[in-house]
Amino acid sequence: MEQPSTEQLSAFAHAILRQQPFAVKLGTRLDAFSSGHAELSLPIVDDLRQQHGFVHGGVLSYLSDNALTFAGGSVLGDALTVEFKINYLRPARGQGRLVAVADVIGQSKSQAVVRCDVFVESVEGTRFHCAAAQGTIVKALSAARSADPADAALRTTG
Amino acid sequence: MEQPSTEQLSAFAHAILRQQPFAVKLGTRLDAFSSGHAELSLPIVDDLRQQHGFVHGGVLSYLSDNALTFAGGSVLGDALTVEFKINYLRPARGQGRLVAVADVIGQSKSQAVVRCDVFVESVEGTRFHCAAAQGTIVKALSAARSADPADAALRTTG
Amino acid sequence: MEQPSTEQLSAFAHAILRQQPFAVKLGTRLDAFSSGHAELSLPIVDDLRQQHGFVHGGVLSYLSDNALTFAGGSVLGDALTVEFKINYLRPARGQGRLVAVADVIGQSKSQAVVRCDVFVESVEGTRFHCAAAQGTIVKALSAARSADPADAALRTTG
Amino acid sequence: MEQPSTEQLSAFAHAILRQQPFAVKLGTRLDAFSSGHAELSLPIVDDLRQQHGFVHGGVLSYLSDNALTFAGGSVLGDALTVEFKINYLRPARGQGRLVAVADVIGQSKSQAVVRCDVFVESVEGTRFHCAAAQGTIVKALSAARSADPADAALRTTG
Repeated sequence: MEQPSTEQLSAFAHAILRQQPFAVKLGTRLDAFSSGHAELSLPIVDDLRQQHGFVHGGVLSYLSDNALTFAGGSVLGDALTVEFKINYLRPARGQGRLVAVADVIGQSKSQAVVRCDVFVESVEGTRFHCAAAQGTIVKALSAARSADPADAALRTTG
Repeated sequence: MEQPSTEQLSAFAHAILRQQPFAVKLGTRLDAFSSGHAELSLPIVDDLRQQHGFVHGGVLSYLSDNALTFAGGSVLGDALTVEFKINYLRPARGQGRLVAVADVIGQSKSQAVVRCDVFVESVEGTRFHCAAAQGTIVKALSAARSADPADAALRTTG
Repeated sequence: MEQPSTEQLSAFAHAILRQQPFAVKLGTRLDAFSSGHAELSLPIVDDLRQQHGFVHGGVLSYLSDNALTFAGGSVLGDALTVEFKINYLRPARGQGRLVAVADVIGQSKSQAVVRCDVFVESVEGTRFHCAAAQGTIVKALSAARSADPADAALRTTG
Repeated sequence: MEQPSTEQLSAFAHAILRQQPFAVKLGTRLDAFSSGHAELSLPIVDDLRQQHGFVHGGVLSYLSDNALTFAGGSVLGDALTVEFKINYLRPARGQGRLVAVADVIGQSKSQAVVRCDVFVESVEGTRFHCAAAQGTIVKALSAARSADPADAALRTTG
């Protein structure tokens, strides 16, 4: 089977993102996509915040989940996040964009392990590190091909 | 110092949730709150989905994060999530509500370890298990009292 | 393909444990094994401790890893731990045995999600909870059958 | 309060390691220790293996736990691991040493977030990556000073 080109993969990635209503709702943008690497960002607006005025932890975890899946997908094709963990390092305060940078650190034929760092990028372009995640991504095709509906059912996490 | 009553804690919890614009945006509701226990839910609507029509994994991780913090806060007072991990078990498909049930499984004066299970609850009231999380919650007051801005800065995750 | 009986699985599990030199070195014992459930324990001896006299966190993480794999293996057959996370709740102090109780909370054809609780059990039989883990277990056979050496290579964690 | 010098911290770290019977039992060596960084290694011997001849996952998790704590301790002083997660990337096969390299990626006054990579280093000095971990380390002194025995009790993980 021929490997898809980087352009094909990137077009596929942009198309997937546009098909995720939740990603669209939050204004998520795919900023970089290459083999083993993905960057997603979204604009920090007031309705993403929590009671102290910082971006809600759940927004950081959402963006990490999404970036982990795209980085894994860059080497696996259609992929899904099986699990991840996230550490919050600092409050995501201020204006600008929330940026998630994800890189594959290990992979086999059917799974990839990915690390992700989340930054607040100010309008001036300075960044500070606000969260760090690590997760496991698996190839969705093998699940979809499976005769077991529970396997196919794993195609959940976008 | 006198311990707050359950009613005071519950009123405090509801007030906190109303002060989280992101939680309000997603329609998050506090369904149960007692010492060591919290339940949050939100209505499953189409703009929470991903490309396969399932609820986006990022919504599940958001709701887990929020429920973990509230359960931890039920024993610690003002609290924040330091970190958590989530496993996706099945796609959150169908209609109804997404329900997160969180319980403290261990605690000290300043931190709590909490487990959370996320379910899809159909309009008929049946539930199926779609994600499992575990995380660490710390008391926010001790951070706020700290002379170190980086500690205070940890008050991020709502 | 016929499913193995509980007795066959249990005999297989005991045989696997005896083939793990590290588990044998630490005196690990398989105390319970049934579909979706496994219990492992080891005697607390002084050379398992750290500088404060508590059982070393690394011993707790080892026993969790091993119990997670066995619980996953009880539903998957030959299995391996892909990843796990552990929270330390209290110091594993005192004499007696370290006991890890692991239960499958979700599974598909090729993977299982497992939770594990680690206790210190005194010689009188009382237990206190000292750690909580959660992890992902995958079927080893599918990896072994794979044409990709990196997949087969995943058969690592015992 | 005066900050300890690097030499003082390093001497403290070596002394702590020598006081951990479990670390000594496995032949753990502190190979590097500076602000925000620690490297631990141990010789791969046959009784560390599992049934396939690879180093047992529990040994990798032990060494990660220990390296995470030392890296955190390099910036916090006396420290303990609250929690961590580990992904197994490849089987730790072959001869040589198991090497864990840990770096602080974020810190406040009382806690540090640390990443760790575990390698097999052959006798020729080549390395391959076999596991990746991420965890939360807290200052032990604050726990020890606490009036709450449950906090002091957290000094568990070495």
